[in-house]
Amino acid sequence: MKSYLEIVERTLDEVLPRTDERPAVLSEAMRYAVGTGGKRIRPLICLASAVAVGGQAEDASYPAAAIELLHNYTLVHDDLPAMDNDTLRRGQPTVWTKYGEANAILAGDALLALAYQTAARAPRNVAAIVSVLGEKGVGVVQGQVEDLLLERGPHAARTLEQPTDSNNQAIAFVYEHKTADLFMAAAMMGGLAGGGSPEAIAALRAFALNLGLAFQYEDDLLDGDSPYSRAETERLVHETTAAAVSALDELPGDTAFLRDLARKLIGRTV
Amino acid sequence: MKSYLEIVERTLDEVLPRTDERPAVLSEAMRYAVGTGGKRIRPLICLASAVAVGGQAEDASYPAAAIELLHNYTLVHDDLPAMDNDTLRRGQPTVWTKYGEANAILAGDALLALAYQTAARAPRNVAAIVSVLGEKGVGVVQGQVEDLLLERGPHAARTLEQPTDSNNQAIAFVYEHKTADLFMAAAMMGGLAGGGSPEAIAALRAFALNLGLAFQYEDDLLDGDSPYSRAETERLVHETTAAAVSALDELPGDTAFLRDLARKLIGRTV
Repeated sequence: MKSYLEIVERTLDEVLPRTDERPAVLSEAMRYAVGTGGKRIRPLICLASAVAVGGQAEDASYPAAAIELLHNYTLVHDDLPAMDNDTLRRGQPTVWTKYGEANAILAGDALLALAYQTAARAPRNVAAIVSVLGEKGVGVVQGQVEDLLLERGPHAARTLEQPTDSNNQAIAFVYEHKTADLFMAAAMMGGLAGGGSPEAIAALRAFALNLGLAFQYEDDLLDGDSPYSRAETERLVHETTAAAVSALDELPGDTAFLRDLARKLIGRTV
Repeated sequence: MKSYLEIVERTLDEVLPRTDERPAVLSEAMRYAVGTGGKRIRPLICLASAVAVGGQAEDASYPAAAIELLHNYTLVHDDLPAMDNDTLRRGQPTVWTKYGEANAILAGDALLALAYQTAARAPRNVAAIVSVLGEKGVGVVQGQVEDLLLERGPHAARTLEQPTDSNNQAIAFVYEHKTADLFMAAAMMGGLAGGGSPEAIAALRAFALNLGLAFQYEDDLLDGDSPYSRAETERLVHETTAAAVSALDELPGDTAFLRDLARKLIGRTV
């Protein structure tokens, strides 16, 4: 775990612009957005997925940094006044609060472009890796737009006691795309960078989709704002966690780290 | 020219989400942003660069669509209230005016991610192609941030009669990154997709850098807001145009289209 985190922090520091690189305000804002010492869940999934297909964690160092850059761009843009209008994140001023709205939009844009430049440095399967990151990069935006539609209309509010079918479809869409898409990109890119077979990549995809859904359902339990009943949400957490863990049985390499990560992520309430 | 434009429009239509793809408002906003029937200068440079290294225009169809997607994302974000606050572009409502600010931020983000997914479909040299698009994707943002600094401080206004050295450096930085970066990405990606040698890619880079600078200097002449004197700006247009055209002599394929394009782009005032 510690050595995986060291790979992530070292690679992020390597690819982010130096703070004296012109224009300095942009370089600073990009580094501020990515921070240091976060949980780095997505890049850890990426490195561990390279190992799970029989490769080395280092094979996936650039895709791991790429998924963290992309994740942090989504946070920078989600916090903007036109979106969630958040002034604090992890107890610190958000990027737009600290650097202004224009710089926050642009820092997010630069993080997104840098994510793809970084993913292209993978040691193999670059076309497939960038393709996955592109598809999921679009997907996460689709999830965010659908989430805004749920919150602001034309759909009904997502906290209905008796969700409608169309509401349920929208919620399922948001859960898959806002959360699971980046987990899937992390796992699939890691597997591809580690030289995994198509079957192994498919298993990693199933693992990450279900882990992402379980993570989202559990977040709802913790926040107390699930669109489903508590019992139904607990059932969904169990079902998706079981599906995630069982997908790991199809992988040829060491899956201990991914199992451990799944337990830590989902062990919060059930 | 007509067949090149057909390749561009057909490929853009192929890669953009159908308007019934969920969420429809995002798919519509992305298509609205890209439009149809524009001049498509950057994708034309890309296709013609594949031919100029001895390949086929079709080799570069996906990189050509990618550079147009990326160019249009920059326009969508530049128009935002926090940036240039423009309500009209090409005589039509800007994306944020029509779809709201949040959707415009997100549509730009999705166009950027889609650009990389599309570039990854090139028939060869995908790692180098995505790397160039990533580097220039960051560069264009750096140029925009520096431009905002010039307009809003801490630098002096860019219309000084006697520009300072530090102002001149900033203006040169903006010209290279805001305009020439995407021309360079277009030409280099096209050359890579067409199977060009490293020497040919370097010549295409020199061509596009100088063409981009010439284009920007001439824009200043047309707008009457050059930071240099009129005579000096005309000298710069001639110098960079000559450098662009002479770079074409080093290419092994048919460069007639690129020469013609340079003449059309720059023939506006000189």
